[in-house]
Parts: sequence; C-alpha cells; structure tokens
Amino acid sequence: MSERAGRLGGLLESVKGPRDLKLLNADELPVLAAEIRDLLVSSTARSGGHLGPNLGVVELTIALHRVFDSPRDRILWDTGHQAYVHKMLTGRADRFGTLRQEGGLSGYPSQAESEHDVIENSHASTALSYADGLAKAYRLRGESDRTVVAVIGDGALTGGMAWEALNNIAACKDLPLIIVVNDNGRSYSPTIGGLANHLASLRTNQRYEDVLEFVKGNLTKVPVVGAPVYDALHGVKKGIKDVLAPQVMFEDLGLKYIGLVDGHDEQAVEAALRKARGFRHPVIVHVLTKKGFGYSPAENHGEDCFHSPGVFDPLTGEEKPKPHGWTNVFGQEMVRLGAERQDIVAITAAMLGPTGLIPFSEAYPDRLYDVGIAEQHALTSAAGLALGGLHPVVAVYATFLNRAFDQLLMDVALHRLPVTVVLDRAGVTGDDGASHNGMWDLSILQVVPGLSVAVPRDEPRLRELLAEAVEVDDGPTVVRYPKGPVGPEIEAEGRLGGMDVLRAGDPDVLVVSVGPMAETCLEAAALLDAQGISATVVDPRWVKPLDEALVAAARVHKLVVVVEDNGRVGGVGDAVARMLRDADVDVPVRTYGIPQRFLDHAKRAKILAEIGLTAQDIAREITEAVAKRSPVLENHPAR
Amino acid sequence: MSERAGRLGGLLESVKGPRDLKLLNADELPVLAAEIRDLLVSSTARSGGHLGPNLGVVELTIALHRVFDSPRDRILWDTGHQAYVHKMLTGRADRFGTLRQEGGLSGYPSQAESEHDVIENSHASTALSYADGLAKAYRLRGESDRTVVAVIGDGALTGGMAWEALNNIAACKDLPLIIVVNDNGRSYSPTIGGLANHLASLRTNQRYEDVLEFVKGNLTKVPVVGAPVYDALHGVKKGIKDVLAPQVMFEDLGLKYIGLVDGHDEQAVEAALRKARGFRHPVIVHVLTKKGFGYSPAENHGEDCFHSPGVFDPLTGEEKPKPHGWTNVFGQEMVRLGAERQDIVAITAAMLGPTGLIPFSEAYPDRLYDVGIAEQHALTSAAGLALGGLHPVVAVYATFLNRAFDQLLMDVALHRLPVTVVLDRAGVTGDDGASHNGMWDLSILQVVPGLSVAVPRDEPRLRELLAEAVEVDDGPTVVRYPKGPVGPEIEAEGRLGGMDVLRAGDPDVLVVSVGPMAETCLEAAALLDAQGISATVVDPRWVKPLDEALVAAARVHKLVVVVEDNGRVGGVGDAVARMLRDADVDVPVRTYGIPQRFLDHAKRAKILAEIGLTAQDIAREITEAVAKRSPVLENHPAR
Repeated sequence: MSERAGRLGGLLESVKGPRDLKLLNADELPVLAAEIRDLLVSSTARSGGHLGPNLGVVELTIALHRVFDSPRDRILWDTGHQAYVHKMLTGRADRFGTLRQEGGLSGYPSQAESEHDVIENSHASTALSYADGLAKAYRLRGESDRTVVAVIGDGALTGGMAWEALNNIAACKDLPLIIVVNDNGRSYSPTIGGLANHLASLRTNQRYEDVLEFVKGNLTKVPVVGAPVYDALHGVKKGIKDVLAPQVMFEDLGLKYIGLVDGHDEQAVEAALRKARGFRHPVIVHVLTKKGFGYSPAENHGEDCFHSPGVFDPLTGEEKPKPHGWTNVFGQEMVRLGAERQDIVAITAAMLGPTGLIPFSEAYPDRLYDVGIAEQHALTSAAGLALGGLHPVVAVYATFLNRAFDQLLMDVALHRLPVTVVLDRAGVTGDDGASHNGMWDLSILQVVPGLSVAVPRDEPRLRELLAEAVEVDDGPTVVRYPKGPVGPEIEAEGRLGGMDVLRAGDPDVLVVSVGPMAETCLEAAALLDAQGISATVVDPRWVKPLDEALVAAARVHKLVVVVEDNGRVGGVGDAVARMLRDADVDVPVRTYGIPQRFLDHAKRAKILAEIGLTAQDIAREITEAVAKRSPVLENHPAR
Repeated sequence: MSERAGRLGGLLESVKGPRDLKLLNADELPVLAAEIRDLLVSSTARSGGHLGPNLGVVELTIALHRVFDSPRDRILWDTGHQAYVHKMLTGRADRFGTLRQEGGLSGYPSQAESEHDVIENSHASTALSYADGLAKAYRLRGESDRTVVAVIGDGALTGGMAWEALNNIAACKDLPLIIVVNDNGRSYSPTIGGLANHLASLRTNQRYEDVLEFVKGNLTKVPVVGAPVYDALHGVKKGIKDVLAPQVMFEDLGLKYIGLVDGHDEQAVEAALRKARGFRHPVIVHVLTKKGFGYSPAENHGEDCFHSPGVFDPLTGEEKPKPHGWTNVFGQEMVRLGAERQDIVAITAAMLGPTGLIPFSEAYPDRLYDVGIAEQHALTSAAGLALGGLHPVVAVYATFLNRAFDQLLMDVALHRLPVTVVLDRAGVTGDDGASHNGMWDLSILQVVPGLSVAVPRDEPRLRELLAEAVEVDDGPTVVRYPKGPVGPEIEAEGRLGGMDVLRAGDPDVLVVSVGPMAETCLEAAALLDAQGISATVVDPRWVKPLDEALVAAARVHKLVVVVEDNGRVGGVGDAVARMLRDADVDVPVRTYGIPQRFLDHAKRAKILAEIGLTAQDIAREITEAVAKRSPVLENHPAR
C-alpha cells in the first residue's frame, strides 16, 4: 500500500471515461494499474467488499475499455462483483469511497449509475445468455457493428446455464460475441469438478512460451484439492506442455479460441482482444489471472484470496474479527450432528467457507460435497444421496435457492425425500443489494407439498430446530436464518401446541412472530402495553405447516398480526390468513414484512427502518388497526 | 402391426421380471422385441402416450435388464416417458392396457408401482444428478457393488443441470456409475445447439465398421435444420470417418467412453453394457437409436417421430384430429403480431410444435430461437434480446417455468425488461401426472416485482390479453392458459375498472373468477340463484397486479370468493385476501383452487371433480359459508 491510499492517483483522476483511457500511453498503464489497486485496497478496507476478484482483473479491465467502445459495444460482467475496476474507469473513481454505502455506489453494476453498466443481477453464470440475446438483437436490428463482450470466471462455467448458453452461442457463427474466460482457478474457493477439462484441450497458438512462465508461477501458489477441472485447466497432471497442445475443443464447438493470455500483461490482453474483435463471430479469449494480484495480504490469504473481506487494516490485511454469527452456530452444530449420525452428509455449491461448512469438511472429509456453482445439481444429487439412505444437508444462501426451486419441488419433495436445506443470509441482507436479499424463500417454499420450514429466533432455537429437521425422514425440511450476528436469547414463557409463547397477553392482539423478528415483536408488545393494548406473542418455530393451535388462539383475539423478515407477498402472513379463513375464523389479520420490490443497497438496520419493520412502526400500525376495528378499545385512542 | 395387437405375445407374457428375461436365449430376443413393439403400438393407439421414444429403446431396455440386477442395481430414466418398455419387463406388461388411465399405470416411473422405478419426476436432465448422489451414497455405505445406470437422451444433455452433473461425476473416479447416452439426434424435435459437438470428438474403438451402416441409414432420414450438435454428432459436415476418429473427449473429462453402439442390435448393447459394468468407475456408453424404430408410421412421421400422439389408428398411424385449442389460438395470434411488429421474436425450449410456434417459425424464421431443453437460457437470453430493443415471447409449459424462476426474477424483472412469457398447459393437465400439472405458476409469480400476469378466460380474451402483454414495455408479462380445447366464448356484461363483469348480482357474494374458471363460476352463480343467493361474477383479466376496483366491489359484498385453476397456496386467492386486508376491508374471503399436493394422473375433468373445483361443489361451499356468516340470509338454508 502506498501513502496515496484513500485519494485518487493522478492518472486515475484524469480518466473520466473510456475515451480518456484510450489516450494514455502504454507506459502509463502500469502506473494507472497501481493507482487502481491502491484505491481498491483503501476503499474496501473501510467498507468491506469484493477485493480479491477485482485485484485480479485490473489489467483485463483496462484492456477491455481501451479496445472496445462502451457503451456502444457492451461489456457484461458475470457475477458483477468483479466490476469495481470497470466502475473506476467509467467515471466513478471519485465516488469510489461511497462503495456499498447507502446512496453511494452499488457493489455491482447498476444501470442507474452508468450507461456502461448492463447486468445488475449478481447471481453467477448468467452473462453468456445475456450476451447471446443481446448479440442476436443487434444482428436482427442491423447493428452488427456492435460487439458484445461477456467476462466470465472459470468457476461460473461450472454453472449449468453457462453451458446452455455456450451450446446456443456455438450455433450462431455470425455473431460478434466475445467470451473472456477470466481463469483464476477459483469460484469462491478453488473451482472443482470435471467439466473445465474442456478448457484443457486447447491450442497454444504462438503465445505458448509467453504464458508458460506465468502459468508455472500461478500453479505453485494455489491449493489444488482433488479438483479435476483445475488440474486439467492448469496442466497439473498431464504436464503443462501436453495440456497446451492444440486440440481445438472450442473450435469443434464452433467457437474460435484465443489463449492462453497472461491476464496481468495489459498489452498482451489488448492484443488478444483486438484479434478477437476482428473475427466478427463467437470467440473465446482465455485469460489467466491471479485473484488478489498485487496486494500481498490477498495473494497469500490461503482460503479465498480475500474474496470478500469485511473491514480490514490495509497495511496488514488483518480483518476486524466478526461477531459470533448464525453461520458459526450452524457450522458447530453440523459437526456435532455429524458425530452422532453417520448418515448425515453436507453439500455446498462453491461456498464452503461462507456457509460455515469448513469445520464439518475437516471432521468428515468424505461426507462433504462441493458441487461447484451448481445449485440445481446440489439439490438433485441430494435427492440421490437421500434415495441411497443418507440424510443430506444442503447449505446455501437463501437467494440462490431460487436457482433450484424446480429441483427441490420435483426431485426432492415429489419423492418425499429426507433432505434438509439450510438457508443462510435469509431476509434483508443489505449491503449487497437487490439480488442478495433473501426475501423470496418463505413465499415460494409455501407451495412445496410435504416440505416443512423452520425459522429459529435465536441461537438455542437454531441448534434445536436443525436437530429436529434432520430427524424428519419422510420429506424435505428447510431451516432459514439471517446474515450476521445472532441476537439475544429469548426464552419461551410457555407452549401452545408446538409454538413457543414468548409473551402471554389478554385477548386483544395475537402477534405471530417469525424467527428473529421476535425481538422486534416483543419490543412492539411493550410499546402497545403503554397504549393499553395487550399483545400475546407466539413463535411458531415451524412456519410450515403451521401449528393447528394457532386457530384456537386466533379465535380468542380481536386482531392477528404476523411479522416476518421476508417478502410480504405469499409468506407466513398469507399462510396464517389462509389457515384462519379455511377454519372459518374471520378475525382480522394484518401482515408485516418486506414490501415486494427490489431493495436498494444500504445497511440492514437502515433498510428495516425504511420499510417499517421496526417495533415502533409495527406498534403504531397495530394501534391504528385496533382503533379502527374494535369498539371496546375506543377508549384507548392510538395517539 | 400384427394380429396380436392388444394381447400379450407369448414371450412377453412369460417375462414376469428381469430374472425371467435373463433366461431367454439370444434368438428369442428379437421375437420379444417385436411383441413389445406390438403392445406399445396397440396400447398407445388407444390411450395416447409417448410412442416414438419407447419404440426407440426396446433393445436397449432389454439389454439393460439382462445385464444389470435391478432393483439392487438402479436404472434411472431421464425424462421418464422412455420407461414404457422398462415397465413391461418389470412385471407390468399385463396391465399395460391401463396406461395413463385413472388407477392404471402411470406414463412415467412410479415408486408405488414397482421397486424397479426410481425417478417419478418427468422434467428433463435430472438423472445424472440423481445417479451421482445415489452412487456416492452406496460408496459411503459400503455398497459399492451396486451399479447405478442413468439413461439420458442427447436432447436432455442440452439442459444445464446435466452438465453440472457431468462435472461432478467426472471428479469421482471410483464410482460405479454408467451413463447411457441414448442418442437419437432429437429432443422432442431434432436436438440443436453446439454443445453436443462434444459427443462428436469420440473414438470409434473396434465397432466403427459395425455402426457405420447404421449411422448412414439414420442420417438420410432425419431432417437437419441448422443444428451443429446434430451435424457434429452424426458427422454430417466432416464426413463420418473423421468424426468417429478417436479424440478421447470424455476420457479427458475423467470418464471412460464406450461407443458408438448400434442401439437396435441387442447383443451389441449387452456387450457394451457388460464391458461398462466391469470398469467400476464412471463410464459413458454412447448408443445410437432411432426414434419410432420398427413402426413405419412413426419412423416416417416427419415432425417428431410420433413423440407423443393422441389416440390414433394403429394400422395407418392416423391420429384423431385434435379440437381447436388454446395452443392454436396462440400460434395464430403470434403470426399476426409478428407481422405488425418487427421487434417481436419468439423463444422455445425444444418445444416448437407443442407450444404452437411452428406457424411463427415458418413466417419469420430469423425471429424464432429454439434454445434446446434449456429454460434458464431461454429466459436470460430473452433478457438479452430485450436489452437489445426487441420484445421476446417465451413460450413454455407452465410446469417448466419453475426451472427458470430465478432467471425471470433476477435477469428479467430486476432489469424491468419487456419479456412476455406464455404458459401453456397451466392448471390441471391430468394424464401426465404430478410433474406436468401447471399448478405452481400463479403462486410463485406473485412474488416477482413489476411482473404483470394475465389469465384469459376464452379465445377472444387470449387474443386480446396477448396483444396487451406485448404492449407492456417496462417489465415482464405472463399470459397463462390450460391444455386442450378452448371453451365457449363468454362476453362481459360490463366493466368495473379494468375487470370484466360477467354477471351483475346483489350485494351477497362477489365471485372473482380466474381465467377459464369463468364457465364454472357462472354455473355456480346460477345454482346459487336457486338458493336465493345473488352472486356477482367478475374476471380481473390481469390477476397481477389486481385491479383497485376490486376493493370497492368487495366492500359492498358480504363474502368474496376466488376460484382459480392453480394451487390454493399463494395464488390469486391469497392475493385478493391480502389486497383487502391491506385496504382494511375485512369482509370474509373464501378461496378455491387445487389442494397443495401432488396429484395422481387421471383425466382433467375427473381430477377437477375429485378436488372440488366444480360448479356444484363451489356453489355448495358458498351456500354453507353464507349460511354461517350472514344472519339476513339464514332464511335460505343451504341444503
């Protein structure tokens, strides 16, 4: 780190857009690259963010914007977290200190921020499909002079939809579409599986000698854990010379291939991209990069090359210790359950660390399956494991389960298989923006027949409900919890059927609190008390199916309220309302959750306040609702 | 067809299970194969069903059950519609006349029918993932003597999850897992795209000369329409000799490869399978078959080799003409819209004929994209086309949209792109069983921000709403309709906001009728009239977002009823109830739809009766609800 950290370097300051970048001399570019790295490190040190991937694409991004004419040409970033450098070079360097702050730059491309940004979704493996459609549209509209460039990591190629796209792109020989494979041998952690062997059967063209040194250097530094893709891609097993022998795999597919290119030699990348641009048909440019390049704490960070650190010391790379979180508790509990039950196995989709499964993988290495960025396969291979007599636990971020909805429904639930899906980062996550909020699961999961869903409110309940979930042997179970630290423990005052009664009240309001909303609900109940409104607060623990005791409880209250950290549409609130209707209990119901829109990025607490999911908001709304409906309470005006 | 049609042949009758099959001499097997084909043709001629695919796998299935020891070894059928022969050989030949009839044999594998059946889900491309999990479970449990065999078509290999699975299987060198690629060059229609070029880079082993004749024969008969996969797979462009040269693609991937095998030479298939079984690690057996083989009306059926005919004449293959259906109307309308608007393009996922897009593809061949069995890519390439200024219409069966839920949400809706998704076979479809009913879409689509959903009740409304949908330019739209013939036209008596009033009533009951349930709702209203209950019936046309006029209308009724041909959980009923709650309108709501469970196969009308979605049932339930709630109506007892 230089002393310039936190301020723009002189060259970077002069680049207000791709046009300025093109005016720089080749010998100025390494200086620019250094300035960019300084800014990357100093900014993410303060705000957290995807440091490692962006350090790896500095030269690649400079080259892309020097060769292509964005926004007329379109540059698509698969998994937008590798677009920080792109943001700096398209007029946003001066605002980079606002990264991931409310009102500041998004951690992903954003159409609202810049005409140079296209894909806002940060789920992986999508860019090739977008590119296919975009290039076909330009062809049909007679704008075939526009080039579409998709930048995709080798990890994202393990996702099925990337292969669906390749299959289609290969069929269109006249599309000016360039696929840059940003090959760093990693997804979040090292890329696994056999498919990227395809990348191995490649010809070197003239650049063999140039890249050989780089490849060798890279190979010694990155751990290889039983990963055939990686092995083949990098020639570990066959010897480099053999792997790089011409095999025209991509050309058989109908795609031109240019590679291997040293991704940290800006001039080499430029040359490859110019050549690719000249072809006017689909071409793959295979670029080798090193995640964390140029910042030694990241390069030497064994687990994930500083994929996405929190706040850290820019000089040492030391991260602020993270508080004890939901993910840890799950990780610990999995080790305990794994010891008790030999039939418990775990599955992750390229997220071993972030989902808390490292301790399990160390304790039971033969019972952990990392399937790559492949949520569909995660669920259906879990179905297979369950058919074979095991109890798989699939750990995945809540938002990514959407990728495998059909597989959970048709492959797991239709066969009534005992698979437990653990959803981390459920509810409002905040900083990462719209596509990372886990606000869909409690809604779409409602339709899955035979599925049971648990939402723990605190650490003891996570341990308890996870244990209950893996005991279910006649159908799938889901356990979901939010991102971040676990809140205070909240003991039950009693039980009502299978539900915990957190607070017993008079027959005014029945509050059904979903998971960690318990703290907010109890606070709201206290505020209501001051208004003379008595609230009973129950936590159903299992929100699907709902406990029958809820019907009797609702019957003796004047208002039923449901509070959940999930989209308001189709979630637990709707389920409670339906249950009561079906039982001919027509007591008024009010439901509180996340409004059904895509949320801008901000801190979780700030978002909750904005959308009215606070104790004050909920208490006020309940007071108003009670005042409107209930003559007996009219002597206790709401405000 | 021989005169034995409809009765079991003598050999087939003697085969009560795989054990009996193993006792037959090699020279008896062609006779058995002929008997099986007779039964296939005579049975499906009466009941309809997947004839073409099953005629193609007769010898393959015989060989599988002679070589492997099911159910100890497990045979998994990808897209279960190719499992008829498997059913016959595992003790169900005598019941084959009950195929797809209520209480009879399912058209797909069924665990309840037989211990030899595993995968009940009929969505494509899943079998390799199941096989991966199953084989890993057996290894972990010390049962590695059990072999897992997955049979998958070349078409299903275009689906992304098949590639996710291959990537993982290739990483496990010690799994006794056999992948039989049943290569007939077709999905429903010829397989398209570039990926199956992988299959082209194969070595011949010794059997080159044997299969050459077969391959040549096949090539002359199947149409090739700009299909690089097919071309490469079958050596059209390169010349057969070149394609069949050893290239060890699969072995590079870490998979042994055996092929090409003539799939209609039973002894050859047996030999290949025995060799594969001996390896005890993942191996691909590449078998060439001909869809419709051995039944000339199917072999010569240009479009789809009798993929799944309705009732037909077994002698001539002539199908009973199908009534004018929803699919036709959509197909016609697309041609009309395509003439008006040059920016309208259409996308199908290997279902050109079944979704009604053939006329469009003939009128505007450069504006039709068949993406293979790849719903994820269908939606995200549509996002790309829309980003490029076009208006894509994606036509897909309702149940298959579940495969692309994340793509619709994150790739299309998050970017507010004008993509229209047309869902055919929505609601109860019946014969095809649980995984073909389109009972999920109106629920899961509710959560998608900015998405509008239309449900036409009749032919004029389909034309009208499709036209409205493609006019929307700031977000996605969905139009959904059922399988089969369109019902009678139902004109509106008036309008209420954007809703059609189908029947004006007094302030007793407001019936919100969703799409084609209008006929049932009007009939129910007539029945209610006879009970002295007056019902207003409205059709919202667009069910998302709901029309605000619904709130005012609900306010002046004593009961609101919603009727939809969709799962009861999370559908339009829940949406109406939520809308009223949010507006502080606490009029009782009752919702009728499909109970949230997997339905057994039967005729649609029979299922609707069973689940209470008939005018009589709905009228009775409304009468009861009214009687319970409304003192003023107590003089009109319900029964």
